[in-house]
Amino acid sequence: MTDMPTALSLREVGPRDGLQNEDPVSTETKIELIDRLSGTGVSRIEAVSFVHPRAIPQMADAAEVAAQMTRASGVRYSALVPNFKGAERALDAGFNEIEVVVSASDTHNKKNLNRSTAESLDDIAAIIDLAHGRGATVQVIVSTAWGCPYEGEVPTERVMWVVNTAAAHGADSLSFGDTTGMATPTRVTRLIGETRSAHADKPLNLHFHNTRGTGLANVLAALQLGVTDFDASVGGLGGCPYAPGASGNIATEELVHMVEDMGIDTGVNLDALLDTAAYAERAVGRTLPSQVLRAGPRTRLAQS
Amino acid sequence: MTDMPTALSLREVGPRDGLQNEDPVSTETKIELIDRLSGTGVSRIEAVSFVHPRAIPQMADAAEVAAQMTRASGVRYSALVPNFKGAERALDAGFNEIEVVVSASDTHNKKNLNRSTAESLDDIAAIIDLAHGRGATVQVIVSTAWGCPYEGEVPTERVMWVVNTAAAHGADSLSFGDTTGMATPTRVTRLIGETRSAHADKPLNLHFHNTRGTGLANVLAALQLGVTDFDASVGGLGGCPYAPGASGNIATEELVHMVEDMGIDTGVNLDALLDTAAYAERAVGRTLPSQVLRAGPRTRLAQS
Repeated sequence: MTDMPTALSLREVGPRDGLQNEDPVSTETKIELIDRLSGTGVSRIEAVSFVHPRAIPQMADAAEVAAQMTRASGVRYSALVPNFKGAERALDAGFNEIEVVVSASDTHNKKNLNRSTAESLDDIAAIIDLAHGRGATVQVIVSTAWGCPYEGEVPTERVMWVVNTAAAHGADSLSFGDTTGMATPTRVTRLIGETRSAHADKPLNLHFHNTRGTGLANVLAALQLGVTDFDASVGGLGGCPYAPGASGNIATEELVHMVEDMGIDTGVNLDALLDTAAYAERAVGRTLPSQVLRAGPRTRLAQS
Repeated sequence: MTDMPTALSLREVGPRDGLQNEDPVSTETKIELIDRLSGTGVSRIEAVSFVHPRAIPQMADAAEVAAQMTRASGVRYSALVPNFKGAERALDAGFNEIEVVVSASDTHNKKNLNRSTAESLDDIAAIIDLAHGRGATVQVIVSTAWGCPYEGEVPTERVMWVVNTAAAHGADSLSFGDTTGMATPTRVTRLIGETRSAHADKPLNLHFHNTRGTGLANVLAALQLGVTDFDASVGGLGGCPYAPGASGNIATEELVHMVEDMGIDTGVNLDALLDTAAYAERAVGRTLPSQVLRAGPRTRLAQS
C-alpha cells in the first residue's frame, strides 16, 4: 500500500447531490447544513446546483443559498451546473469554482440534460471559456463513468473520449462519477490508469456511490494509486433515484472514519461531522444509510 | 493487484451468525434456508452452533436442524462451538468440521463464554484432541481480532498470543473475526502479515462485519494478500448486538457481486443467492442491509 497518500481533500456533496435526491427542505436548512459542514474541517463543499427549477425543484433557491451561506476561510465552495445558462448563474452568484456534468452514456445524458454527450461537450467548451474569462475554474464531471443505469456497460474508450475532449477544451480538473454504484475496484484501477496515462497532470476527483456496497472498497483502490480528491455526502444523504431504498453517495463520516484510522489526514473532526450527520437526518426526516452514524466510531465502547 | 486470487471459498454464516442475532425462526425455516443456500453454489455453510439454549435460544434446535438438513455434495457443513460440551454435541450430530471461538479480549470472552481467554485456550486444546480423535477438523476463530466493544483496541501481540497458542494446540485452520466492525484495511494487512510470518502454512479464513461500512474494503485488502477464505451472511442477516440498527456480517451477495466482477470465481450463482436473500428477508420479517438485494446486480437496467 506504498502509494497511499498522507492527506485527502474531501468535497462534501450532501447539500447538492444529497439534498437534490431528498424531499425538499427549506432554504434556511440548506444554509444551516452548509455552515455546519464548514465547521467540520472539510476541504471543499459542493453547495448548490444551478439547474432549471422544473427539472430539480430542490435546487430552485440556489442563488439565495449562495448569497446567505457563510463562506468560511479555508473552505472551497463550488456549484454544479448542467449547461451554459447554469454556469452564468453560478458565476453571477459568486462561485469561482464550478463543476459541469456530462454523462459518458448518451441515454443518461439525454435524460439528465436533454442533449447528447457530444452536444454537452460542445457546451462545455463554451462554459470553460466563459468561466476562465471571469477568473473561475471548471471541473468536468464525467457521470456514468463505470456504467449506466439505462445502457449497462459503458466502454472505457467512450469514457476516455469524453475525458480527452474535456481536457482539450481546457478543463482545469476532472472527476469521475459512479452514478449508480456500478464500479468495482478493478474497474476503478483501470480507469484511473488510463486517465493518468493520457492526462498525468490533470487533477482527478472521484465520486463514488455505495448503491451496491462497494463504495469504500473503490476508495481503497483509488487511494492505492495515490488519488487524493474524493466526494462524499454527510450521513449518506441522497439515495438512488434508480433503486428505491438503495444508498446513494458514500457517507462522508464512513470515509473519514476509515481513512483517518489508516493514517490519512482529512482535516475533518469526526465528532463534528457526526453531529452534522445527525442534523441532516433530522432535517430530511428519515434514517440515513451511514453505518458510522448508527454504530459510532470504532473506539466507541459498549456498556460493559 | 497481482497477488489477487482467482477463486474464493465462501462460507455462508447466515444460518448461524445471522439467525442467532435475529428474532427466533422455526426449525423448518432454518432447514429451508440452509437447503436453499446449498443450491447457490456456496462452498461452505456454517449451519448451526451448539451453545447452551439459555445463552442463545435461537440455536436450541441445532441438533434437529443438523439431522434434517440436506447435506448436498460439494458443500462443506460446519458447526460453531463455544466449549467442550458443544464440541461433543457437534460431533455427535455428525459434523466433521467444527469451529471453536475464542475472543482475543478477556472482557468479551468472559461475557461470551464465561471464562478468560486463557481458560478458553485450555478448552481448545481438549476440543482439538477430541475432534482429531473422531476424525474431525477444528478451526479456531479468534474474535475481537481488530478491537473489542468493551476494551477498545486489542494489541496485535495479544491476538498473536491467541493465534500461536491455538496453532500449538493443533488447530487445523485459523479465522479472525471482526466482531463489531472495527477493522480497517491497514489493520487487516498488518494482522495477515503477522499471521503469515508465524504460520505460513495454516489456512486462514476472515470474518468481517460491516458495522462501520468497511467490510468490502477489508475484503479487498485481504484479497490483495491472496486470502481466499471468507465468511459472509446472506442478505446481511444478523445485525450487531452492540449497536442497534447497525449492520452485522458482510452480505454474501455484496461480496459475490464485487469479486465476481473483479474476475474472481466464487462458484455462486448470484441470482439464486439473491432469491435466497429475499427468502431470508421474508423469514425474519425485516429489511436486511444488503445493498445488492435492494439495487440488484450492477447490470440490472432501469426502466428507460
